[in-house]
Amino acid sequence: MRYKELDTNTLLDFIQDLDSVKEFFTSDELSVAEIGDGNLNYVYIVKSKQNPNKALIVKQAVEYLRCVGEQYPLSRQRMSFEIRALKKFYEYLPSNLPKIYYENEDMSLVIMQYLGEHEIMRKGLIQKTTYPKFSEHISTYLANILFYTSSLYLKSDKKRELIDEFNKNTQLCKLTEDFVFTTAYMEHETNDSENVNLNPHAKKLFADMEFKSKILHLKYKFMTQTDCLLHGDLHTGSIMLNQNETFVIDPEFAFVGAFGFDIGALIANLVNNYIHHSVVTKDDEFKDYILKTIKKVLELFEIKFLKLWNEQNESALLVDGFLDENSLNSFKSEFMKNILRDSIGFAGAKIARRVFGVAGVEDIRGIENKGLRQEAEVLALKIAREFVIKYENLNDINEVLEMIKYAR
Amino acid sequence: MRYKELDTNTLLDFIQDLDSVKEFFTSDELSVAEIGDGNLNYVYIVKSKQNPNKALIVKQAVEYLRCVGEQYPLSRQRMSFEIRALKKFYEYLPSNLPKIYYENEDMSLVIMQYLGEHEIMRKGLIQKTTYPKFSEHISTYLANILFYTSSLYLKSDKKRELIDEFNKNTQLCKLTEDFVFTTAYMEHETNDSENVNLNPHAKKLFADMEFKSKILHLKYKFMTQTDCLLHGDLHTGSIMLNQNETFVIDPEFAFVGAFGFDIGALIANLVNNYIHHSVVTKDDEFKDYILKTIKKVLELFEIKFLKLWNEQNESALLVDGFLDENSLNSFKSEFMKNILRDSIGFAGAKIARRVFGVAGVEDIRGIENKGLRQEAEVLALKIAREFVIKYENLNDINEVLEMIKYAR
Repeated sequence: MRYKELDTNTLLDFIQDLDSVKEFFTSDELSVAEIGDGNLNYVYIVKSKQNPNKALIVKQAVEYLRCVGEQYPLSRQRMSFEIRALKKFYEYLPSNLPKIYYENEDMSLVIMQYLGEHEIMRKGLIQKTTYPKFSEHISTYLANILFYTSSLYLKSDKKRELIDEFNKNTQLCKLTEDFVFTTAYMEHETNDSENVNLNPHAKKLFADMEFKSKILHLKYKFMTQTDCLLHGDLHTGSIMLNQNETFVIDPEFAFVGAFGFDIGALIANLVNNYIHHSVVTKDDEFKDYILKTIKKVLELFEIKFLKLWNEQNESALLVDGFLDENSLNSFKSEFMKNILRDSIGFAGAKIARRVFGVAGVEDIRGIENKGLRQEAEVLALKIAREFVIKYENLNDINEVLEMIKYAR
Repeated sequence: MRYKELDTNTLLDFIQDLDSVKEFFTSDELSVAEIGDGNLNYVYIVKSKQNPNKALIVKQAVEYLRCVGEQYPLSRQRMSFEIRALKKFYEYLPSNLPKIYYENEDMSLVIMQYLGEHEIMRKGLIQKTTYPKFSEHISTYLANILFYTSSLYLKSDKKRELIDEFNKNTQLCKLTEDFVFTTAYMEHETNDSENVNLNPHAKKLFADMEFKSKILHLKYKFMTQTDCLLHGDLHTGSIMLNQNETFVIDPEFAFVGAFGFDIGALIANLVNNYIHHSVVTKDDEFKDYILKTIKKVLELFEIKFLKLWNEQNESALLVDGFLDENSLNSFKSEFMKNILRDSIGFAGAKIARRVFGVAGVEDIRGIENKGLRQEAEVLALKIAREFVIKYENLNDINEVLEMIKYAR
């Protein structure tokens, strides 16, 4: 099929003939509207006129960055990786991924479940919404996806097939290499220049060679470690949830990378929210809820990941009987500790890059009062620095919480 | 072109029409003979009848392991990786690679320079031949190939293209995963069973959980670290040389892996030769020559690799000006130390696997006197254990030499 960029008019023609769409809407009349909040892609909602709660999401990538326009070219092939990741994740964990109704790599288009009763986690957390099932859900998601796509589960040939499927997500990996690990820590045109100029904290960060050496090390790890299939951009804007359900969306950055990267992204964005409330609402109860969530996510991830690993005797890595039980358990403990360490290192980079880098987060850059915003930025840099300088020597999840609480 | 398995009769028909072959031999009449020493492939020598010094080597892969026969299937696709590696290595370092006259992935066939005045290094070292230019040559080879195929030189997109080219060398990587990192340390049908049964040293090795835990860690690193393009099997049987020239051959195991793996393979095989002479000839002068060679290879590799790195300001990893000069130099020192450490860890595995595993080396398994052979095996296990237990804490090349000398 030849690629064709759709719009609200042509979209309907395209989807109306698809079996899965016909089956979903039966004979209903359909309406189409563009949802304006996609950064990278065009996102449409298709609704039944008879029953507006019956709806599907259609997402199509274009040959440029949607939020900037045609002057910022970006291969639409990114949608192929999103489609592949959605399918792969769904295979291992259907309960936390939107259902796919149709996908077409040629058209860079996917049709999926409409999450009408769910909200973007970042927005919810800023509003101090608590999600009682979130830690349970996301730790299951992380444990399952990271384990089942790693060499601890897959055989060598399957692992290499997985790498083949995602290796060429070059452009989006490059965005992370640039924006998470490089330009946010030096004078660069993509930075939040209004804030950077004459800002002593930016000057200090850009000159902090101890911090930047560690960032470079983390960048190298990001580029060369192939542990498992990652979402690649697992911040709280990539999570839609409510009191009962949690969905992970938008995995266009998916690639085979380091275990700690997705966990780190999530922790970083929970920390960003903690910082928001430290400065803006000063709500100790909600701050405590965020800290408990971080702790619970890390603890449950480890428990669940180890449980899956203990059920698996043979993999690319392990042959049954190679180590005795005690030695194998020690090996696994050491392995889990390294995942924790890397997660916190990556989290540090993910927090710091939001301060002056190209893409801020609402939790911090969205603070309207300039004084408070700078207070939040300073706190973010402090916690990020603690994480990045100390992650290699971490031994325990509680140390992570101490770093967050006492970074002032 | 459709694949066709050639033999001494059909080979001539196939190659006679090739332009590069016609140009090489002009109007000479040709003779073909099979060289019997290929383990994996068929290797032929094509000579001019008028001038027998004028010759080319033709190598063709078959759908099985040549030394075992059709009952051991092995995809002939391995030749594609050998061809790609030979071309890639030649691009960066023509002086140490055989010249390619013709290559055809469909036919799993390559025609290359005949190295008639060179010998296999392993055989030369057993005969106590010294090679005055070897350290210089091989350190240049290692520094160039490892650096120019890494993220310290390549841009992100080129690095990913390189991974794409070699990622599916699944079967040969799996051989290493099995034979270097797994089966040689446990009861297994592929081991040198005559030697293993009732051998207290085998029993001890197979029960050495501290050692095996470290091996498992090295195996994981082998499987998941993508630093640079490797030869993948750089032992002294993959090196042909004389007093003036050094050639690296047979890169069918090529893949994008950990920096330390090729260096480690080379060091391991120099150590195996050191062990041979420790036990068989007891020639202190030659043993000292081997130790000096190990030291010089490691030292020169580091100097040359750093020199290339210092000439390179921009790469996937680095943006000019990201770190100040002091910090960058510290980063590089730390990086080089990690390459040394990993090299010695991998060397340890490479030494140990030769003792009881499926493929012995002539330096040790070739010792006819059973008592001396066992003495060599015990020494090999001691040095290997030192390497594997201590590599993570190494700081200096001299420590490596100490471990070899005082492992008794």
